[in-house]
Amino acid sequence: MAKDFTTRKEDYSKWYNDLVIKADLAETSAVRGSMVIKPYGYAIWEMMQAALDKMFKDTGHVNAYFPLFIPKSFFSKEAKHVEGFAKECAVVTHYRLKNDGQGGVIVDPDAKLEEELIVRPTSETIIWDTYRKWVQSWRDLPILVNQWANVVRWEMRTRLFLRTSEFLWQEGHTAHATRVEAEVEAKKMLGVYTTFAEEFMAMPVLQGVKTENERFAGALETYCIEALMQDGKALQAGTSHFLGQNFAKAFDVKFLSKENKLEHVWATSWGVSTRLIGGLIMTHSDDNGLVLPPKLAPFQVVIVPIYRKDEEQIAVINKGLEIKANLEKAGIRVKLDDRDTQKPGYKFAEWEFKGVPLRIAIGPRDIENNTVELARRDTLEKSLTAVDGLRNIVIDLLDKIQENLFTRALNFRSSHTTTVENWAEFKDALQNKGGFIMAHWDGTNETEEKIKEETKATIRSIPLDYGNSEEGICVYSGKPSKGRVVFAKAY
Amino acid sequence: MAKDFTTRKEDYSKWYNDLVIKADLAETSAVRGSMVIKPYGYAIWEMMQAALDKMFKDTGHVNAYFPLFIPKSFFSKEAKHVEGFAKECAVVTHYRLKNDGQGGVIVDPDAKLEEELIVRPTSETIIWDTYRKWVQSWRDLPILVNQWANVVRWEMRTRLFLRTSEFLWQEGHTAHATRVEAEVEAKKMLGVYTTFAEEFMAMPVLQGVKTENERFAGALETYCIEALMQDGKALQAGTSHFLGQNFAKAFDVKFLSKENKLEHVWATSWGVSTRLIGGLIMTHSDDNGLVLPPKLAPFQVVIVPIYRKDEEQIAVINKGLEIKANLEKAGIRVKLDDRDTQKPGYKFAEWEFKGVPLRIAIGPRDIENNTVELARRDTLEKSLTAVDGLRNIVIDLLDKIQENLFTRALNFRSSHTTTVENWAEFKDALQNKGGFIMAHWDGTNETEEKIKEETKATIRSIPLDYGNSEEGICVYSGKPSKGRVVFAKAY
Repeated sequence: MAKDFTTRKEDYSKWYNDLVIKADLAETSAVRGSMVIKPYGYAIWEMMQAALDKMFKDTGHVNAYFPLFIPKSFFSKEAKHVEGFAKECAVVTHYRLKNDGQGGVIVDPDAKLEEELIVRPTSETIIWDTYRKWVQSWRDLPILVNQWANVVRWEMRTRLFLRTSEFLWQEGHTAHATRVEAEVEAKKMLGVYTTFAEEFMAMPVLQGVKTENERFAGALETYCIEALMQDGKALQAGTSHFLGQNFAKAFDVKFLSKENKLEHVWATSWGVSTRLIGGLIMTHSDDNGLVLPPKLAPFQVVIVPIYRKDEEQIAVINKGLEIKANLEKAGIRVKLDDRDTQKPGYKFAEWEFKGVPLRIAIGPRDIENNTVELARRDTLEKSLTAVDGLRNIVIDLLDKIQENLFTRALNFRSSHTTTVENWAEFKDALQNKGGFIMAHWDGTNETEEKIKEETKATIRSIPLDYGNSEEGICVYSGKPSKGRVVFAKAY
Repeated sequence: MAKDFTTRKEDYSKWYNDLVIKADLAETSAVRGSMVIKPYGYAIWEMMQAALDKMFKDTGHVNAYFPLFIPKSFFSKEAKHVEGFAKECAVVTHYRLKNDGQGGVIVDPDAKLEEELIVRPTSETIIWDTYRKWVQSWRDLPILVNQWANVVRWEMRTRLFLRTSEFLWQEGHTAHATRVEAEVEAKKMLGVYTTFAEEFMAMPVLQGVKTENERFAGALETYCIEALMQDGKALQAGTSHFLGQNFAKAFDVKFLSKENKLEHVWATSWGVSTRLIGGLIMTHSDDNGLVLPPKLAPFQVVIVPIYRKDEEQIAVINKGLEIKANLEKAGIRVKLDDRDTQKPGYKFAEWEFKGVPLRIAIGPRDIENNTVELARRDTLEKSLTAVDGLRNIVIDLLDKIQENLFTRALNFRSSHTTTVENWAEFKDALQNKGGFIMAHWDGTNETEEKIKEETKATIRSIPLDYGNSEEGICVYSGKPSKGRVVFAKAY
């Protein structure tokens, strides 16, 4: 399977695309820019959803569902939001088809909508239009709501998971009585995303704040986590926005405070999407295919029976079933690949390519010796292990793999983070090494834009401790800088 | 809370609508025909999803995700499907908005799609277009895929949960090598739906087959479960379709069989939707509000502390926390309503209205006596119970409530199912009692249509044992009948 597979060195972009297709994660569809998420890819998304959903609920949030369609006029209500989102949208203009008399269908011209509907690119507008009805008094606050949904942003250049016209995501939308409470919420959810990225995805992230240029349309502050991919490009992995009172003002959402004053509500919104699957792939996978961290692997262990004769088949499969049941007692997700239509070599290659963290092979000699062969996906190391005590060994190994993937990614990021002092060093680092570049910047949009034009590098984020660390001189303009920010080329 | 609430006798339809709104389940939105599912309503949907998803996975299915948009031309590929579904659809014609120069936005006329896209009303077409790429050999079969998604069918007359333009559902789409295997699958999923309806929703259902008139557009056979609502109207609660080779032929999906012959694939599809929440409400709820079966209640137990003085507050809330922790150990979902802003009476009324199966009230005297007051939502019975052994009592009571709700609904259905022998009896039963009417029918579309025109009653389903039970004479035409079928007015 891996034979006709592009290596990362040959062509990183082709490697990524081939991997997504060949590991059965997703594929392009008949609709331009929309993908089909195949069962194996969707199973990873389900693992992500389960972990995130639990973290959201543990922090007091509940789920709800808001309409897919948003009246066009809603987009003009928040001045900055309209600039950012009322652009590349799918627009519903009609509500009926009719037969064309030749076996086909045409759009019924009599069924034109009075006001066009936009397929949601994000739901702030429809949600704040709804919150107006939910909020009268401070007793109705906070509202801590999350939605799991599909959204559509018409993209011209798409890539599976990373940028598709339709994608799946969650969007949290909270409403608060005070500015401080909303700011605390926005940062809290940044923390939740960080924990998820690092502890579940084994993907180290930098926490920071976006510059004005990169800020969410309608936000006062956009917090973000940025991850570094193996090709030295950054990936924005999640954002959490402090929206101030902008949407409350646009949609007239007021509440009577404890002090009996009518005030506008404070807001946050925050989201992560199926894009994370792209980040997961580009953080850990290798030239042998996908590598999955155990906490998000649909199967953590695959058992491959090896046999020639019928009686061997019965013995090794029975042993496999026994081991599977034993591991499942500890909550381990196990696949026993008992297909009789494929040879063990094919199965080894397939599950390696699909990134299953641990493989257990059982052959007739293993039955005699009461052993199995264990193979780690992350290091490709193999070892012979006694069946007795196997469960604890597997638990321990899965922990080690999870940890090793994080450490490896962290080391990669460390070795691809360069602190530069001047423009020559900046360009040199960007060209020869890629990765994150920590550089002083004068704080102006103008300089940010010029650096982007010249190098394609953008400010990924301003560190959270910005302004409290060292001052310096902007690498580009030579003007004073309050602190270093993070530059990189990005997905 | 219940004071200004319409009773079922006064106006069943208004009762339903008021209940949905006042129990915080859902509300209408700014977009005609689309609803907002509020957190409490969505929590019920999440309980339903979790139970169904587990049953799907236990029967070998996996989840995947297919595009929201379907090219218009796909609908014309299956001749009957186009009749049924290419009608009231949301049609995307443009992909960009632009500023109108006055702070508003208009649809950009330059961004017109070459081929219009339909927002999926159901996904057979896009999925079978995809399956063509997935299937070459018998080894690739069966495909057992389910999708959780939103769909849109433009409805003129909408009702919350029961009929909305956008709704949430699951749609299973399976592909098989043989006709028999597909038929077995369609019936298996009918069984899964039946188990879910009866064991989780406590809603008895009749299993059957739809007549040709009521069959899914493109199916050879539509299996269904039909439930009876308290107002004597039937609700179609779930359908499972045997699609034959219709979609495989329309989308050219062939496979090489074990015998090395190229054959068209056999198909099923099956779905249930947020409509089930409407069915749940209309099966169990009463003039005091929502009644939820314990297995689907977001909170199975609510604890209401009663106190006047500060030291009482501390004592009863601590006891409440202790009981909550104790019940949660058994996996019971418990809400401790410790709001200091509302009085106990208000809380009692609120949770009763929201259908929480069991209420535990704890006052200062209970602390002294080590007791609590238990109140069942289904019977409104109260009892004083010792705290010792409370967990087992609660577990037992929740089981009893679940069982009682089912029995009650089953009794209601029995007393509202009438076997009639002639047209006079048919009309009498329909007018004076409602419910299911078991009547002989001559098997023709013509008679079915005439009965519908005259009485608004439709054939809800043909029993699975039809043709093997008694023969008779059609109540309408007097022609021979192969067996009784189920008539009712329906939602």
